[in-house]
Amino acid sequence: MTENSKFMLRAIELSIQSAKTKGGPFGCVIVKNNKIIAEGFNQVTAKNDPTAHAEIVAIRNACQKENNFFLKGCDLYSTCEPCPMCLSAIYWAHIDNIFYANTRSDAKKIDFDDSFIYSEINKDIENRKIKMYQMHRDEALKAFKVWENKEDKIKY
Amino acid sequence: MTENSKFMLRAIELSIQSAKTKGGPFGCVIVKNNKIIAEGFNQVTAKNDPTAHAEIVAIRNACQKENNFFLKGCDLYSTCEPCPMCLSAIYWAHIDNIFYANTRSDAKKIDFDDSFIYSEINKDIENRKIKMYQMHRDEALKAFKVWENKEDKIKY
Repeated sequence: MTENSKFMLRAIELSIQSAKTKGGPFGCVIVKNNKIIAEGFNQVTAKNDPTAHAEIVAIRNACQKENNFFLKGCDLYSTCEPCPMCLSAIYWAHIDNIFYANTRSDAKKIDFDDSFIYSEINKDIENRKIKMYQMHRDEALKAFKVWENKEDKIKY
Repeated sequence: MTENSKFMLRAIELSIQSAKTKGGPFGCVIVKNNKIIAEGFNQVTAKNDPTAHAEIVAIRNACQKENNFFLKGCDLYSTCEPCPMCLSAIYWAHIDNIFYANTRSDAKKIDFDDSFIYSEINKDIENRKIKMYQMHRDEALKAFKVWENKEDKIKY
């Protein structure tokens, strides 16, 4: 068994525990320097938090541990191909590599929306199921101006 | 001024406050029955949480208030077109409508990655900047089986 097999098998253990108790069937671990630094499992219904996917929970835990909003030098092991929310969070967190097991099609077969959301994101704004309306851009640009001119800003 | 103008102007107020203090220049409010039920502003660097975008913060707050992992009957007002992480969270939360002001191109001009992440998500897995490797699907499918056979599962 390779080192990274061990990490994925731990994530799978978390996903099975989660499915057997109060969560969706998803688990995740984050690894740095060959050690697990954070874990997560799905807590959407348990915590009334639609963002509490295994990967988001693990990323938030890892960032608290590292005292950092970036996770450079870390790999993420997820029991399923990350949904677009989690994949984007992985990009925002600057994680190095993603290991995954099940696919979005596997998730679709048990009625999860990952695949549907991937297809929605690819559509033009005007063709999406959730309607989007633009307003007050001129006023909103003022905040961007403040940011642009801010000398001590912390970029992320 | 229309009712929804008022909601967007409040989100813009939050975005300016955020840019002037410790956050990115983004604000969000969630509205139900013509009243703001939750607010959010960017707290990525302030809280070491790469997922703490204004929309995610507002969604999490609204769900706590509603005691629900769905936000049906709610509209979201964001000062910027949601990034793919936030847009997906909006889908997972089953929000009715999205109102936004600045665009992903406006965000790109002040160096935010929204536009880049949208383009990455559209790519095939093997062409993405962050490398993705599949492993142990057979073992991971066991959790999906547990879920499939679970009689008292709460779907989300």
